[in-house]
Amino acid sequence: MPQTTAKNLSLIAAIDLGSNSFHMVVAKAHHTEIRILERQGEKVQLAAGISEDRQLSEEAMQRGLECLKRFAQLINGMPAGAVRIVGTNALREARNRNDFILRAEAILGHPVEVISGREEARLIYLGVSHTLADTPGKRLVADIGGGSTEFIIGQRFEPLLRESLQMGCVSFTQRYFRDGKITPARYAQAYTAARLELMSIENALHRLTWDEAIGSSGTIRAIGAAIKANGHGNGEVNAEGLAVIKRKLFKLGEVDKIDFDGVKPDRRTIFPAGLAILEAIFDALELQRMDHCDGALREGVLFDLLGRHHHEDVRERTLNSLMERYHVDQGQAARVERKALHAFDQVAKAWDLENGNWRDLLGWAAKVHEVGLDIAHYHYHKHGAYLIEHSDLSGFSREDQQMLALLVRGHRRNIPKDKFAEFGDEGVKLIRLCVLLRFAILFHHIRGTQQMPKVELKAADDSLEVVFPEGWLEQHPLTQADFANEAEWLARVGFVLSVR
Amino acid sequence: MPQTTAKNLSLIAAIDLGSNSFHMVVAKAHHTEIRILERQGEKVQLAAGISEDRQLSEEAMQRGLECLKRFAQLINGMPAGAVRIVGTNALREARNRNDFILRAEAILGHPVEVISGREEARLIYLGVSHTLADTPGKRLVADIGGGSTEFIIGQRFEPLLRESLQMGCVSFTQRYFRDGKITPARYAQAYTAARLELMSIENALHRLTWDEAIGSSGTIRAIGAAIKANGHGNGEVNAEGLAVIKRKLFKLGEVDKIDFDGVKPDRRTIFPAGLAILEAIFDALELQRMDHCDGALREGVLFDLLGRHHHEDVRERTLNSLMERYHVDQGQAARVERKALHAFDQVAKAWDLENGNWRDLLGWAAKVHEVGLDIAHYHYHKHGAYLIEHSDLSGFSREDQQMLALLVRGHRRNIPKDKFAEFGDEGVKLIRLCVLLRFAILFHHIRGTQQMPKVELKAADDSLEVVFPEGWLEQHPLTQADFANEAEWLARVGFVLSVR
Repeated sequence: MPQTTAKNLSLIAAIDLGSNSFHMVVAKAHHTEIRILERQGEKVQLAAGISEDRQLSEEAMQRGLECLKRFAQLINGMPAGAVRIVGTNALREARNRNDFILRAEAILGHPVEVISGREEARLIYLGVSHTLADTPGKRLVADIGGGSTEFIIGQRFEPLLRESLQMGCVSFTQRYFRDGKITPARYAQAYTAARLELMSIENALHRLTWDEAIGSSGTIRAIGAAIKANGHGNGEVNAEGLAVIKRKLFKLGEVDKIDFDGVKPDRRTIFPAGLAILEAIFDALELQRMDHCDGALREGVLFDLLGRHHHEDVRERTLNSLMERYHVDQGQAARVERKALHAFDQVAKAWDLENGNWRDLLGWAAKVHEVGLDIAHYHYHKHGAYLIEHSDLSGFSREDQQMLALLVRGHRRNIPKDKFAEFGDEGVKLIRLCVLLRFAILFHHIRGTQQMPKVELKAADDSLEVVFPEGWLEQHPLTQADFANEAEWLARVGFVLSVR
Repeated sequence: MPQTTAKNLSLIAAIDLGSNSFHMVVAKAHHTEIRILERQGEKVQLAAGISEDRQLSEEAMQRGLECLKRFAQLINGMPAGAVRIVGTNALREARNRNDFILRAEAILGHPVEVISGREEARLIYLGVSHTLADTPGKRLVADIGGGSTEFIIGQRFEPLLRESLQMGCVSFTQRYFRDGKITPARYAQAYTAARLELMSIENALHRLTWDEAIGSSGTIRAIGAAIKANGHGNGEVNAEGLAVIKRKLFKLGEVDKIDFDGVKPDRRTIFPAGLAILEAIFDALELQRMDHCDGALREGVLFDLLGRHHHEDVRERTLNSLMERYHVDQGQAARVERKALHAFDQVAKAWDLENGNWRDLLGWAAKVHEVGLDIAHYHYHKHGAYLIEHSDLSGFSREDQQMLALLVRGHRRNIPKDKFAEFGDEGVKLIRLCVLLRFAILFHHIRGTQQMPKVELKAADDSLEVVFPEGWLEQHPLTQADFANEAEWLARVGFVLSVR
């Protein structure tokens, strides 16, 4: 089925809601190739609108939404699954991110996903590795964003190490160059702050080693251009060039006076902070040279989207490796998954679960519901939820990850109704998925050793009826007792489970 | 040092504060051998005094404390480290356990540790394996306690699988036989509840297989005796015997009428519940026969105590395997540990850390402070704390585990003062350990790549002064900035860190 979908999806688009700029690319997909048709980008500077108490201001939201209205025209009418929209550090930070997301989704007509720093790093590397020539050596990729900076060491198309640090050219500008003055003391503060951040990862990077260093963000391109304009190199960043530019900045004394060729006016404000971060990276990693690559996050999102439609869904791989790592009983997980999806198909219509990725979500939850057992048996559903909520799960948005965690949390014992309610209208559907997952688990409670009969499911709004073959239940009092217990748990969240 | 201590500790004692009975054994230790000098046991039935909202009643506490007063006479004057006192399921359950523990410690003069179900299982197996002949086959050991039932599959002295289920003969008596009446319907309810509990582990047990089944609790011994008294077998439990005894119980109709030879009057009340649980175990695990072994939890505690004094501290092994499992950078952990312990020795006197196991605790925390990195970099101190708090860590008491988790939680960024305060007077010392751990980490923040100088530490009540060699700090501005940041974090918990 995904194959046919892919054929229909010849037009795909990616939007990257960055902390500094919003970007959109629209491309034509042909098998596993992509041809970019359109690029759009605007300096929205979302990160500049985040207050001390991590609230995104109405003004910054408006800037972003205005930009999205313009983007929306180009993706009008594209089918679900053909557009992926990802939010990065500014939206990770903002406590009121949901206000913005809901309004953005209303404008765009497609879901907005907030992704983790490491997921961002993975997608950046995907974009870079599809853009550069396919050489055998190891690459270090650095991407200085508005709010965070990502580092990846990878080989060919495989990231070997992904890190994300909480430093970016917009947030550092706010902290060290707010009034536009450039002094050696302020620069030193910004530089030192960046060095301290880098300490937590530099050793791991050094240990892996790399053959070439690539920068993939606008900041790095602009610095390379400034270095070239000052007579050093050919657009790449190099150590001497950084020193030259730094001295020039100190001489200029304020951002408004920056007039390097190749640095657009709207980049001036954040230029000194970007330079301090990049110099810190050069020193910490002992770099001599860094080349620039145009492909980055949004290209990565496109290639990831393409992969999902070609049976290379990275999310499946992620969950499989999670299952392996935490020693999940694979046979049991497969039995529960089969049963859960089978049950889903019987009730999807009655429970309004046909649109969206509900079926995927249920299958994923079935796969990983027992990961917590590896920590301890006592309260293992809670441990599993913790692992899923906090692990870096490649390919998953924060929201999918949180929903998945909640399904695992609720797969046995009490169902935390308030936590489901946090998902608003979707919470109701999520509880229904939870009921299906619990049913499938209950059905295979006696692991592998018991042949289970065919059952029929009848779903209404807040109820599920399970019809066993006549006489079967009477002969299987353990299963009967099990379902009686379950009916009590579900009754606590206003749900009627009946069995006959 | 432990070696010399061991020589002094020729007399050792273990007390097991069980949910049904309290037991004490006093023994003479000679190298790795133990000779039991004294055994004491009293049916305190702590579990019967736990209310629905998990409060241990004053009456039950009194019963326990009276018993401990009698025990106390025998361990009077034994040195610290020679007595280990463990609490099991009833104390795991009771929310007000600390009230009881403090009063018990005042009477006994030694610390009381509440241990997890799996730790209990480990100790039970240690006791059983040292008591039985050393045969090569695999053993299944079951121990039906008052509040929980432990299962272990082990070979020689090594447990291969440990599980603990929330079912016990006291709690099941309360739930199904509260008024002393025995009916087939009630018995079936208890039996079914036990079968449902067993479902979560029976497959894992079956998969490992075993050569013989051993029961190690009073309940199992009593049932074996009753079976023998009714003309079946020689003290072991067997399937036909269980059926015979069950029919007899139904005929008697109430617990007061139970008069099997070998079943003491104070065991009568909990006999039917114990039988239902044991029958469920026989059916779920398809057993034909179970032999009884006298060695159990308290003997295990003695052997564990002996191990700690002979460089076989299971806690070291536990932490090493935790480090391996979560891919801790061992070199860095070792550097931090060395530095932390070195710092400890400089300030232990000034900070009143010389008595107790503070030094051990600091060393453990240094070893595992980075385990959370394996889940994700973001907030990894919190993930590490979660793993340590919730994992089954062999050899650790619940309290040690919680303290260790808190040190890991507090090893970077903010120090959660309120969480330290929960440990009362010990919280102050715990914060001091936390300061030392953070100092050692900071000192080696630049991993492996930087040679660090000798420093001098000066400690007063709420302050620590770090004296670097003259001129060193000025030449190392990153370290200087690092310590300046640290001073700000510590100031928030009223602690003064100064560096010169």
